[in-house]
Amino acid sequence: MQHPLLVSAQAGDRRALARVISMIEDGRDEAPELLAELYPHTGHTYVIGLTGAPGAGKSTLTSALIGRMRRDDISVGVLAIDPSSPFTGGAILGDRIRMQDHAGDAGVYIRSMGSRGHLGGVAEATPKAIMVLDAIGTPYVIVETVGVGQAEVEIVESADTTVVVLNPGWGDSIQANKAGLLEIGDIFVVNKADRPGVSETVRDLNQMLDLGGERPWRPPVLATVATSGEGIEELWTAIGDHRRFLESSGELDRKRRDRLATEFRRAIMAELAARVETTAGDERFGRAAAEVAERTTDPWTAARRLLDRG
Amino acid sequence: MQHPLLVSAQAGDRRALARVISMIEDGRDEAPELLAELYPHTGHTYVIGLTGAPGAGKSTLTSALIGRMRRDDISVGVLAIDPSSPFTGGAILGDRIRMQDHAGDAGVYIRSMGSRGHLGGVAEATPKAIMVLDAIGTPYVIVETVGVGQAEVEIVESADTTVVVLNPGWGDSIQANKAGLLEIGDIFVVNKADRPGVSETVRDLNQMLDLGGERPWRPPVLATVATSGEGIEELWTAIGDHRRFLESSGELDRKRRDRLATEFRRAIMAELAARVETTAGDERFGRAAAEVAERTTDPWTAARRLLDRG
Repeated sequence: MQHPLLVSAQAGDRRALARVISMIEDGRDEAPELLAELYPHTGHTYVIGLTGAPGAGKSTLTSALIGRMRRDDISVGVLAIDPSSPFTGGAILGDRIRMQDHAGDAGVYIRSMGSRGHLGGVAEATPKAIMVLDAIGTPYVIVETVGVGQAEVEIVESADTTVVVLNPGWGDSIQANKAGLLEIGDIFVVNKADRPGVSETVRDLNQMLDLGGERPWRPPVLATVATSGEGIEELWTAIGDHRRFLESSGELDRKRRDRLATEFRRAIMAELAARVETTAGDERFGRAAAEVAERTTDPWTAARRLLDRG
Repeated sequence: MQHPLLVSAQAGDRRALARVISMIEDGRDEAPELLAELYPHTGHTYVIGLTGAPGAGKSTLTSALIGRMRRDDISVGVLAIDPSSPFTGGAILGDRIRMQDHAGDAGVYIRSMGSRGHLGGVAEATPKAIMVLDAIGTPYVIVETVGVGQAEVEIVESADTTVVVLNPGWGDSIQANKAGLLEIGDIFVVNKADRPGVSETVRDLNQMLDLGGERPWRPPVLATVATSGEGIEELWTAIGDHRRFLESSGELDRKRRDRLATEFRRAIMAELAARVETTAGDERFGRAAAEVAERTTDPWTAARRLLDRG
């Protein structure tokens, strides 16, 4: 890579790294050039997705996992996705403070995504931020997401191994099912295992997972106490097991190919959307929008007509 | 309206109504014609959005609210959005059973959306289903969503009044903040108010809402026990208050205009996406996708080139 910022980022300059990600996130003029230059160097990072309901202890678990990886001198990037709130001006302090355990460590890069309050934008920005970390040689990236919505699921699709974090008795674990979390997990973690109801939650999860029938990878269910480090070794081992499974089955290559195909389709859509926005000012668009507002023409007919004559 | 299915649906035929919504949801050949015919008859339904974390008791609250509306002989449509699960083959039985309280009532139409497991699709289908109910003269529609993700937020944007349902001590109510729920609620309900911690949760919510500063509508915080009907009258009154506020301030008209403008933009995007899909089979697309897969050209450059020559 030749761009001075990329060279600096690769040499370990955190401010340069942060600037590259910001420039790409904000869609600055240099973004396309940066992406084009770093893209051929991607394809090596292993991405761990960490998701679950608010309050499940994802940040503490991430922090513990970072600690484990650092013991083996493995560098790691963390992308923390928090819907921002105008009430607090961004992420809740507690979690970020916990993350600060690793703030002085040159082998850990932590970035809070989504400070712009637009999850769709985060879903677009996250794969790009992963690519930047990938291109400069970060071996592992952890993507931590709050919640269970579609945008978060899309973000989790960036992950090679998805860890779903639950709590003992968390809405009876049936809620995890309801929220669609059972389908996306490669590993399940019942965190806060020092509280009552752990074995029941583990059992319920195992039963529900068994209902899914035979699969080449049956997600394990682990119990952790992230605050004390209990179960973190087992989690790290399970991640390694899942990685070896993906690699030996050829599933990792397939996943990554699919992901790039998705990224390409998204890029086409984003480019089309940008072109729609530039025409949104023109007269024909205004007339069509007025017809929709007066309820004389429905939105879909109006859209078809507009594009047919386009 | 002249289409036989629309005429039947308007006359109270539930099966005809269900068929119309299904045809539109599935994008059948007749869908554009149906939408075009019913669209001029829309703009009268009042939409109540009901959202919150899984397990908060949304379905029970919806059921209680239906009961209250039926006492005044008000007809109501309910669109329940549940991410489907291959583990259960759809919605969890419990909630649907609770809804069955109203199954025999001709003034209540309940539909479970999203059985196709694709929330993005639900986000597209829900406004259309509302339009169908609107066109046949349903005065109120309740949209009940699970979770707090972007797709759910988009669905809530279809609502005139958004009710956010929490529980006492639910992750300290700070979690509601974190999940971005504080910004979208017009009314807050602390449900399961027979459990400990109600007054603390109500107080915390009020404090956080006060941090938002002066606003023309300050969302009230109510306590309910949906299973016993406690607080439902107050909720119905608050919905009426919010409606009158929106009507008298001109906010309702503005909201609805904005919503149609959004719907129009989405229709344009959907039409463009459909056109991309039809070109996805062609040779130039295949070559570009291969370059992306080999990491010789980045997805965004490839997309721009493809569309420039298109």
